[in-house]
Amino acid sequence: MIKKKKEIRREGIVVEAAKLFKQKGFAGTSMRDLAEQVKMDAATMYHYISSKDEILKTICFGVADAYVTHLQEIEDAPLSFTEKLKALVRLHIHLMTTKGPEVSVANNDWKFLSEEALQEFKSLRSQYERKLANLIEQGVAAGELQEVNTSVALFTLLSAVRWVELWWKPERGISTEELENTIITILFKGLQK
Amino acid sequence: MIKKKKEIRREGIVVEAAKLFKQKGFAGTSMRDLAEQVKMDAATMYHYISSKDEILKTICFGVADAYVTHLQEIEDAPLSFTEKLKALVRLHIHLMTTKGPEVSVANNDWKFLSEEALQEFKSLRSQYERKLANLIEQGVAAGELQEVNTSVALFTLLSAVRWVELWWKPERGISTEELENTIITILFKGLQK
Repeated sequence: MIKKKKEIRREGIVVEAAKLFKQKGFAGTSMRDLAEQVKMDAATMYHYISSKDEILKTICFGVADAYVTHLQEIEDAPLSFTEKLKALVRLHIHLMTTKGPEVSVANNDWKFLSEEALQEFKSLRSQYERKLANLIEQGVAAGELQEVNTSVALFTLLSAVRWVELWWKPERGISTEELENTIITILFKGLQK
Repeated sequence: MIKKKKEIRREGIVVEAAKLFKQKGFAGTSMRDLAEQVKMDAATMYHYISSKDEILKTICFGVADAYVTHLQEIEDAPLSFTEKLKALVRLHIHLMTTKGPEVSVANNDWKFLSEEALQEFKSLRSQYERKLANLIEQGVAAGELQEVNTSVALFTLLSAVRWVELWWKPERGISTEELENTIITILFKGLQK
């Protein structure tokens, strides 16, 4: 189905908003800044988007939805627990290299969501972490993984890739493939030979 | 040598300031908030400390100094490159579990340092990262470590431990020893059996 023109325009505004929020923070960005960035007058922009809160919600739940959908696919795939966890680490890196500003906003500015959205977002995040923790526990039980504390392993994996959001860009000369493979090697095989 | 009473009081104020900065952010904390926290009237507090900027500088350079001093000791120790890197990962975890608020402020609020201090702080951080990168390169050259991209390995190690600052507290029921050993296992030996 062909996307409606209004929807395409709206998406373009959200993408630019994510870049601004990443750069100046959600609190530090005004709708005026955004109108300048997308080269529209405010009245035209408000035709597509009603408020900063709405944009933040769109960004945060867009990212959450990407994670949840992929997790479901990975859970259902005929893979070992180790391969599932590797696929999830690759997913995190992939989203940061392809949707850097959106992921950054979802990671850092979610706390500015309005109350109801905030509760839903936190609940989605908890469910996601719980499912990842289950994969780790199952991997340990199956004898595939080292006998590690689940929480420590979970947060070490999630945290180990977070720098990508801040540092990686194509100009660094490291391909996304090399990036993913190196991180996967360190986390699953270990840095030590 | 016995510390002067004024110096002890000053240190106490800095410790409380680090807690407040971590909780409310440097920008969101006023000297009035701090005076309340340390239960002093403002005039008395200013006898020990002149400004928020001075406190931030004390915290950031205190943390930087701890890292630099320990790195020097580790570099000089008769250890393999792998053991040196492990000792540095342990150092990062140790500082986060024993000086959490200070490390948090140095990690997040350093950008509010005044211009001259900011340049010095960034330069210290670059030197520190360069020395860590050297250890990784030497470890690879010596055949101790996997042949990894130095920058990716450096930032993966540093990033992998960052969550400790936000999550770990004694009430979680994970000892600092278990925490350190688990993270070291994942990063150096790999999560996969």
